[in-house]
Amino acid sequence: MKKLSIAVMFILLAFCQIHAQQAKYVFYFIGDGMGVNQVQGTELYLGELEGKIGITPLQFTQFPYTTVATTFSATNGVTDSAAAGTALATGNKTKNGAIGVLKDQQTPVYSVATWAKDHGCRVGVATSVSVDHATPAAFYAHAAGRGSYYTIGKDLYNTGFDFYAGSDFLQPKDKNNPQSESLYDIASQYGYTIARGYKDYLKKCKKSDKMILFQSEASSQADQTSIPYAIDRKKGDMTLQEITRSAINFLSKDLSKGFFLMVEGGKIDWACHSNDAATVFHEVIDFDNAIKVAYEFYSQHPDETLIVVTADHETGGFVLGKGPYKLNLQVLKNQKVSESGFTKIINQLRAKTNNKVSWEAVQQALKDNFGFWDKVELSEKQEARLKAVYEQSLQNQEMKMEKSEYAQDEPIAAEAKRIIDEIALTGWTSGGHSAGYVPVFAIGAGADKFQNRIDNTEIPVKIAEAAGYTRK
Amino acid sequence: MKKLSIAVMFILLAFCQIHAQQAKYVFYFIGDGMGVNQVQGTELYLGELEGKIGITPLQFTQFPYTTVATTFSATNGVTDSAAAGTALATGNKTKNGAIGVLKDQQTPVYSVATWAKDHGCRVGVATSVSVDHATPAAFYAHAAGRGSYYTIGKDLYNTGFDFYAGSDFLQPKDKNNPQSESLYDIASQYGYTIARGYKDYLKKCKKSDKMILFQSEASSQADQTSIPYAIDRKKGDMTLQEITRSAINFLSKDLSKGFFLMVEGGKIDWACHSNDAATVFHEVIDFDNAIKVAYEFYSQHPDETLIVVTADHETGGFVLGKGPYKLNLQVLKNQKVSESGFTKIINQLRAKTNNKVSWEAVQQALKDNFGFWDKVELSEKQEARLKAVYEQSLQNQEMKMEKSEYAQDEPIAAEAKRIIDEIALTGWTSGGHSAGYVPVFAIGAGADKFQNRIDNTEIPVKIAEAAGYTRK
Repeated sequence: MKKLSIAVMFILLAFCQIHAQQAKYVFYFIGDGMGVNQVQGTELYLGELEGKIGITPLQFTQFPYTTVATTFSATNGVTDSAAAGTALATGNKTKNGAIGVLKDQQTPVYSVATWAKDHGCRVGVATSVSVDHATPAAFYAHAAGRGSYYTIGKDLYNTGFDFYAGSDFLQPKDKNNPQSESLYDIASQYGYTIARGYKDYLKKCKKSDKMILFQSEASSQADQTSIPYAIDRKKGDMTLQEITRSAINFLSKDLSKGFFLMVEGGKIDWACHSNDAATVFHEVIDFDNAIKVAYEFYSQHPDETLIVVTADHETGGFVLGKGPYKLNLQVLKNQKVSESGFTKIINQLRAKTNNKVSWEAVQQALKDNFGFWDKVELSEKQEARLKAVYEQSLQNQEMKMEKSEYAQDEPIAAEAKRIIDEIALTGWTSGGHSAGYVPVFAIGAGADKFQNRIDNTEIPVKIAEAAGYTRK
Repeated sequence: MKKLSIAVMFILLAFCQIHAQQAKYVFYFIGDGMGVNQVQGTELYLGELEGKIGITPLQFTQFPYTTVATTFSATNGVTDSAAAGTALATGNKTKNGAIGVLKDQQTPVYSVATWAKDHGCRVGVATSVSVDHATPAAFYAHAAGRGSYYTIGKDLYNTGFDFYAGSDFLQPKDKNNPQSESLYDIASQYGYTIARGYKDYLKKCKKSDKMILFQSEASSQADQTSIPYAIDRKKGDMTLQEITRSAINFLSKDLSKGFFLMVEGGKIDWACHSNDAATVFHEVIDFDNAIKVAYEFYSQHPDETLIVVTADHETGGFVLGKGPYKLNLQVLKNQKVSESGFTKIINQLRAKTNNKVSWEAVQQALKDNFGFWDKVELSEKQEARLKAVYEQSLQNQEMKMEKSEYAQDEPIAAEAKRIIDEIALTGWTSGGHSAGYVPVFAIGAGADKFQNRIDNTEIPVKIAEAAGYTRK
């Protein structure tokens, strides 16, 4: 009997090994600032849009494995994106602000993307913000401070992954050295083609060995720092879904090698820094739409594909419910632009009227873009607040722009956003990050490694185990 | 070759079935109001107490399976404890306020504890608040409104589980009918022994068929509503760990039957309603200490025991971090009493001085109980705030008690708690509940059912599957 048991054990082990296939294709999605409430809020918002109390699930929350991860850095209870990016990329805690180095700010540490490259895989790193921003940078660069954008850009070339994507470089020239080579000009030396926008990518992809995909200069908000918010998107603007599609397309040129792709939803964080709930929900939905493209790939290669979705930290201290035992998230459907988008609209009004914008014009803009007085009833107090801000900043020109981490907004835009968020019964604690758990969702080969509560540094290690990469 | 594969499959299935043992002993721990940040905050607090940045893990967060659950009720995006209790107990969403009935407030629905009883198991329901409070009530009672405490108390007898524990009954007599029988008096008719305190339990347990364990009238805070907060505990006060130990002891009288035990950490929620961070962390640690007793049992019966730990909802909109990228949770070690505990101290000072409490006496009390001016430095502004509250409420007697869900506190106690929470860099959004995910942790037989993101109604169903109960 004992012999039989041992025989069964051996057969079982052999069977398990045959069936525990390695992850040949790895997707690592990072929602910057996407805490548990950002995810749950988006699902409850989608549920309310369908007229129900409850959730309409996103694609990634339906993955078969879910857990949570701790995020503190080596130096701070509350991490920034550089230290969190380094943890998620390399498996090492570091000092807030540091990229791909230990907390001595010198010793380089290498990312799971590098391990994948050493394993022979094709590798891509993509984001909706600039390609040299903290999260993507942690996968290919080493810098004592996240602000060394030019050095980080050079590291992008030196590390030499197959595919990069983002809005642009933040500092194509070294701001401390006007004689420095432009990061655009040296692309070809390193074998890279730069494409501008999705159409340009499609044109150039076949003939390119290595690719950098940036947004087109013709983008509706052609600024280097990021692609437009989903809520502000105009026709022709590049999307995170297009970026993801391009990446998969490019990395699939030789599927025999397998690939590793990191995609960051970078602007969830920006919208959270601005405490702009509607914009956050649209960004999370947009992030999910990018993940759906990876899920399509997974559906074709289910035994060899791993998709991991997580976040680097929570931003804003976002809370669903402010005391009354209910939510009113559906009101946010009336918000048609981000706080920054509305700032642009007010700026245009200023320009058009020689800075003499009437209250009626502001009311019309608020009606068109927030539904106020039309689909969204305001209390007398709320109306008075808007009027007071109008009088101060647009009538009397005593304007003090409202600053958040990545934006400076018109006070009237900030007040309108605050009011609609109040009506939605959402709460915000600060303009910075918080230390809550972040969610982790996984599907595919090796996804069963994500079962217990983990630390963020364990995630790249588990991915390496699932894919058979050697850590260095 | 194909035949061999099929043979291996059969052996594998047989092997799996032999080894997928049913959960004969089930522990279901519910931390009322224990959102993800309440758990993570406690771990970061424990970490800081050890002088490190990072966590010192609780027992239950180390369980091998972790996921998150949605909590909305049938009628509200933000649930109350009655609807959440009914979901966690019976697998049905209901109206906020309803206990063990559908949202028509009439159709009874039955709990996993009832299914366990029908399966032949011994059953216990225990809490740190009154035994007829929403969460425990949802496991044995059926009421349109959670406030029908007398009816709920009668249901306790009619349902007839083996063991109940809590602080007391809230309404031993029907307040609408002075002729009603006292719930104490009818205990023996239903075969129950009432024990008062742990020692009394130990005395009476052997000779009792069915047991209700209440706290002793000699408790330091002998009030019917709850056992004392862990942070306020005095020698001789009953603890949730003692309750859990008693429950296991009583249910183990005939281990051959198996058992089901629900234990609620009811006062995490109360401390969150008061936005009292130090008191929350002590309650979560205390809840973990109760879970450790179950874990001891699990260690002796690992193949047949399932422990599930979750929460009914988040309370307070608690956030770890208020903008600066750091935390200072260790300052909370200087808080020696709850906000309510400090209210009592001020009351005693009022009584002792014929309501002429000096500023010096208040300062001394704040020093002794919050470390102010001694171990905790205050800014001039913070000191001025305390002084202003003192002058209004203690000098000029213009006192307005600060009301929260379960407490009315002295303004000076509320202000002191607010100040130490600010110094700790924790944030609170409201005095009510919020709609965030709640965490789920599981270990033991059937724990692998808790892998994906779930709804709270799925939890009792998964427990029933793990234990082989028939749902009704």
